[in-house]
Amino acid sequence: MDNDSLSPFFTPQGVAVIGASREPVKLGYQLARNLVQSGYTGAVHFVNPRGGTLLGRPIYTSVEAVPDPVDLAVVLVPPPAVPAALHECGRRGIKAVIVATGGFRETGPEGAALEEQLLVIAHEYGMRLVGPNCVGLINNHLPLDTTFLPPPGPPKGDVAFISHSGAICAVVIDWVRGQGFGLSHLVSLGNQADVSETEALGPVAADPKTRVVTLYLEGISDGRRFVEEAARVVREKPVVALKVGRFESGRRAAASHTGALAGAEEAFDAAFRRSGVLRAATMEEMFHWAQALAWCPLPKGRNVAVLTNAGGPGVTTADALELNGLRLASLSAETQAALKALLPPAASVHNPVDMLAGATLEQHAESLRLLLADANVDAVIVIIPPSPVSSAGAVARAIIPVIQASDKPVLAAVMGDRLVQEAIEHLRAARVVEYRFPERAASALSVLAQRAEWLAAGEQKPITLEGVDTASARSILAHHPQDGFLPANAAAGLLEAYGVRAAPMELARSAEEAVHLAQKAGYPVVLKIASADITHKSDVGGVLLDLRDAKAVAQGYDAIMRNAATAEPKARIDGVHVQRMLPPGQEVIVGVVRDAQFGPLVMFGSGGVEVEGLKDVAFALAPLTERDAQGMLERTWAGRKLGGYRNLPPADRQATLQALARLAQLAWDFPEIAEVEINPLRVLAEGQGAYAVDVRARLVHPAG
Amino acid sequence: MDNDSLSPFFTPQGVAVIGASREPVKLGYQLARNLVQSGYTGAVHFVNPRGGTLLGRPIYTSVEAVPDPVDLAVVLVPPPAVPAALHECGRRGIKAVIVATGGFRETGPEGAALEEQLLVIAHEYGMRLVGPNCVGLINNHLPLDTTFLPPPGPPKGDVAFISHSGAICAVVIDWVRGQGFGLSHLVSLGNQADVSETEALGPVAADPKTRVVTLYLEGISDGRRFVEEAARVVREKPVVALKVGRFESGRRAAASHTGALAGAEEAFDAAFRRSGVLRAATMEEMFHWAQALAWCPLPKGRNVAVLTNAGGPGVTTADALELNGLRLASLSAETQAALKALLPPAASVHNPVDMLAGATLEQHAESLRLLLADANVDAVIVIIPPSPVSSAGAVARAIIPVIQASDKPVLAAVMGDRLVQEAIEHLRAARVVEYRFPERAASALSVLAQRAEWLAAGEQKPITLEGVDTASARSILAHHPQDGFLPANAAAGLLEAYGVRAAPMELARSAEEAVHLAQKAGYPVVLKIASADITHKSDVGGVLLDLRDAKAVAQGYDAIMRNAATAEPKARIDGVHVQRMLPPGQEVIVGVVRDAQFGPLVMFGSGGVEVEGLKDVAFALAPLTERDAQGMLERTWAGRKLGGYRNLPPADRQATLQALARLAQLAWDFPEIAEVEINPLRVLAEGQGAYAVDVRARLVHPAG
Repeated sequence: MDNDSLSPFFTPQGVAVIGASREPVKLGYQLARNLVQSGYTGAVHFVNPRGGTLLGRPIYTSVEAVPDPVDLAVVLVPPPAVPAALHECGRRGIKAVIVATGGFRETGPEGAALEEQLLVIAHEYGMRLVGPNCVGLINNHLPLDTTFLPPPGPPKGDVAFISHSGAICAVVIDWVRGQGFGLSHLVSLGNQADVSETEALGPVAADPKTRVVTLYLEGISDGRRFVEEAARVVREKPVVALKVGRFESGRRAAASHTGALAGAEEAFDAAFRRSGVLRAATMEEMFHWAQALAWCPLPKGRNVAVLTNAGGPGVTTADALELNGLRLASLSAETQAALKALLPPAASVHNPVDMLAGATLEQHAESLRLLLADANVDAVIVIIPPSPVSSAGAVARAIIPVIQASDKPVLAAVMGDRLVQEAIEHLRAARVVEYRFPERAASALSVLAQRAEWLAAGEQKPITLEGVDTASARSILAHHPQDGFLPANAAAGLLEAYGVRAAPMELARSAEEAVHLAQKAGYPVVLKIASADITHKSDVGGVLLDLRDAKAVAQGYDAIMRNAATAEPKARIDGVHVQRMLPPGQEVIVGVVRDAQFGPLVMFGSGGVEVEGLKDVAFALAPLTERDAQGMLERTWAGRKLGGYRNLPPADRQATLQALARLAQLAWDFPEIAEVEINPLRVLAEGQGAYAVDVRARLVHPAG
Repeated sequence: MDNDSLSPFFTPQGVAVIGASREPVKLGYQLARNLVQSGYTGAVHFVNPRGGTLLGRPIYTSVEAVPDPVDLAVVLVPPPAVPAALHECGRRGIKAVIVATGGFRETGPEGAALEEQLLVIAHEYGMRLVGPNCVGLINNHLPLDTTFLPPPGPPKGDVAFISHSGAICAVVIDWVRGQGFGLSHLVSLGNQADVSETEALGPVAADPKTRVVTLYLEGISDGRRFVEEAARVVREKPVVALKVGRFESGRRAAASHTGALAGAEEAFDAAFRRSGVLRAATMEEMFHWAQALAWCPLPKGRNVAVLTNAGGPGVTTADALELNGLRLASLSAETQAALKALLPPAASVHNPVDMLAGATLEQHAESLRLLLADANVDAVIVIIPPSPVSSAGAVARAIIPVIQASDKPVLAAVMGDRLVQEAIEHLRAARVVEYRFPERAASALSVLAQRAEWLAAGEQKPITLEGVDTASARSILAHHPQDGFLPANAAAGLLEAYGVRAAPMELARSAEEAVHLAQKAGYPVVLKIASADITHKSDVGGVLLDLRDAKAVAQGYDAIMRNAATAEPKARIDGVHVQRMLPPGQEVIVGVVRDAQFGPLVMFGSGGVEVEGLKDVAFALAPLTERDAQGMLERTWAGRKLGGYRNLPPADRQATLQALARLAQLAWDFPEIAEVEINPLRVLAEGQGAYAVDVRARLVHPAG
């Protein structure tokens, strides 16, 4: 991707404000003022056909008149005037334009047409566009502020913020100050006619002043590109995302269990997990995480010591650690002995370490030093409540040098308001993260641990698959150019081509033929209705198990045909499939559905007919890496019990992982596969493999 | 309960500070100062053997010398001197004493012995004790402050706070001010040698100045009394609790699935649910809920309108509504038409209503008025971000009269910091709840809806059970005076006595006898190992299903005996139980285990051997009300699918509820039943009943 084309947005030589106004109530004035007050050291030019002067500078009556250097324009003129402004910019040779003006796609079809026009003009001049309908950009360290938002701007800091919502930018700028941290970049993307979140990611992350990137997303325009680009960025710097619009993303209409369960949120979860983007549930959480990611060293593990001078907050913190997947560290005998020598007899030298209310400043500092020196301790949470003995501010001053001397993360829970204000200020000045409540500290610390584990695991490659016969799969698909469900034998053939074994199955068109095929397969057998029109066979009495002789098979054939005719009189019925019954094993569901944003989305979980009720399923993006596949097994009961449970012997985990990876690859290789699902996949004992008992595949051939 | 004995703690005529000090660094000075500065209008007395004067008052050298009126003493002398101080108080006729001094049970066995001594002295004089090891009490409207905490005290307000942790009291006093609300009472209970959270609940709730009670709990001393008292209070005023110590409450050692899954947290959840106490996950959440409960009218339903002037926050709010079990209200055609007439064409008049960034103050007020007038709207969340057009403060002023004129709750999400400060202040002054983020507003609103539903449902009585034969159950238990598992037939007998039908079952001691019993019962039959020593029968190959003839039964008998001898060579084996196989149905687990705090705790969920893996279970306290029992079915997949699912026909829900209630009553009536579990309970088709297929009951006879 040519990111050079974006550099004028972030580090322009000269900026022209088109629509600058001399009336202070107008946004065109406010934008001009912010730009000047931001301390931008490049050239600042104002354009307005009325001319005059503004903030001590001339107002040019046309873009053409703007002198060099100028490589970025910010357009804030009424919507109908924007196309002309873009033309002027193009003729003047400006290749980067922020269209702040609103009134385009967000207002309806007319606005969308006007927006389309902007894009055409931009293409004509090889121009990049941010917006329209955005509040502008801030590069806080350059410095540069092209927004029209009410001052003050955000404090300078380490966190870059990219947003699909302009209003949220205004909130964040105002809010971060009160939280004691600042921004490196702010990017308001507006309608994203051209530049999207994915393109903005790289440039803001590349700035050495950015230590963390945060994203407010209402959707993603090109899911796979986002995943690739985010994964690349995440290897360098942490990315935290808040994705909203959950309430709008209803379930998709789908014929498979996988399709019914794989909503947009599941796809986003899978995409963020794949790319290593940390997904926050709320804006507060996103920025609280970002603060810790910006300022703290990463922990080597999940063992946390808690240092407190009171019992209640210690207990609260221990709870929060457990809820966040962290552990209370077991302190070494030496640490405990040293703490015992340091602290009064009634103090608790186990973790949480409670120094008691009378703890001196020296005891605070020395206890923290002892905890950080303990090899069993990966991180410390220090609790600072208002105290009748030492002021919270003095405690903060006492521990700051200890925190700064350590390469382990120390997070402070400074509990209270007015009485702890001084402590908060000292800690912030020393770049020590502090939260009002230990739950927030524990949540942020767990994210640091996640980040450390992500980096330690290194880059993940898709699982290598042997014996995949793409040609054979292609030839089966070539025989089915129509959209809709594949016949069962074709679906089974696809799986076989990709190395997933199906229980051998043959089609009987009469009771006699069924008996013949059963004898050939060997008893006991299973009979299943063969009809592309019947989605859930067992629901209509279309499946009979464990038939042990010819009589049972003959009766079974007739029963199934009767059941099917009663339940689905309009279904076209091909006959009945006869299958040798597989040895016992564990049954799981494995499926793939094509997500509009992220492509094939793989599901694994508890199979059978109750899939949608139990919802014991997990998702990952195709193609699968080892971590993706293992993760799906770990996150589901179906996956965990493959390792054995009580009288259930261990099943063939390896074969399950292979089946998952192969199904994922199949859907990845053939975009016409809209859904493919094995339910159940019978997983036999360890080393015995896994068999697709029932497969369904639905094709939707891409248009054109 | 005689709560009059507690009234001096809350509304004393005169207070003596025993251990008042003239040295400002001492807690004895700080306590005296807080008491005087609180503006308490009763008599204030200081006691210290050194005498002198303090804060313009004489210091008496003994409690005896303190003049009338004096009905409350606060003791803050070194631990060894506390018993003598109590004696003095007793002799002076003081019946209520706060022992603020620490150094008792919390420090170890010696301290515990000293604490025991305090209790003996208190009993001797008919004296009530709060503490020891507490920070004191505040009745903020009386006013009265008996704490030694650093000033300022909490603002006057509507929320009572009762706490097991003194440090948390200090945090809360300081923190609530910054949050814009205040306290009516603060009660620090310390070690609870005498007065517990349960006793404190009534008096603080009875104060008309208290609108909500909040509890910070590290445990509960008498679970059943708490549930009764809390339920009584909750009918009058909302109670919100934060229960910490989750990390300490390990799983209990148990022989049943119920016992393994029913930890202390599940018991607390069940207790809070039963009593109507709202359980918060964090302190922030507790107080954010409390604010809304104190200031907002209750909504009539869960349909919420969102009023915003920007898209992003509207989407975020809609997400938060969904996550909190609320709904986006469908606005009436009239409301939409009126909004259309009021707002610019590009505005969204669907919910969320987006007035756009240029919205005027009049549009804010009028839009809100329209939404509140819509019968489809039960509540409104108004978003106020920093705006380049109107100041947030002006917006707040414009909407406050509309909010105050409505009987529907309106919660404000005022997003930002410095730029929205004025709005925050106006709203607080007008007693309109405001949060920095819409997620918090949605969470608080869902709690208002919960409270409204709770009140609407009225008082719940335990399910009335007919045909319970207590005498017969008592006689079965009388035959088993030993602790341990009951034989299967005795366990089945207990159930039958309480009207829960078990599949009839007889014991065979030989293969021949098994065949005979099978013929008597009618084929197909089930065989099960009969041994009190074997906990999980199917795990050892001790269960065979669907045996259809004599040969199968005879072979089955031998196979089971062989399997059991191999798997559990030391188990005493009585033989094999022969049972007619029940018609097909849905299988669930129903169990009761005795919780140390709350008594019999009932579990319902997905049965079988995977109970502990699937964890599809819910809990409630015995005896069960209709709401408890229905709730357990609603919260589990096992319960929901009883209503029918795909090809699974509806099962007998009513019989399931009855089985649950009867098992609960059995455990309630007989304290020697430590665990009783039906796994599975086979629930037949509607109207066909439910049968206990396998029952286990373990007795632990109460000591003495």
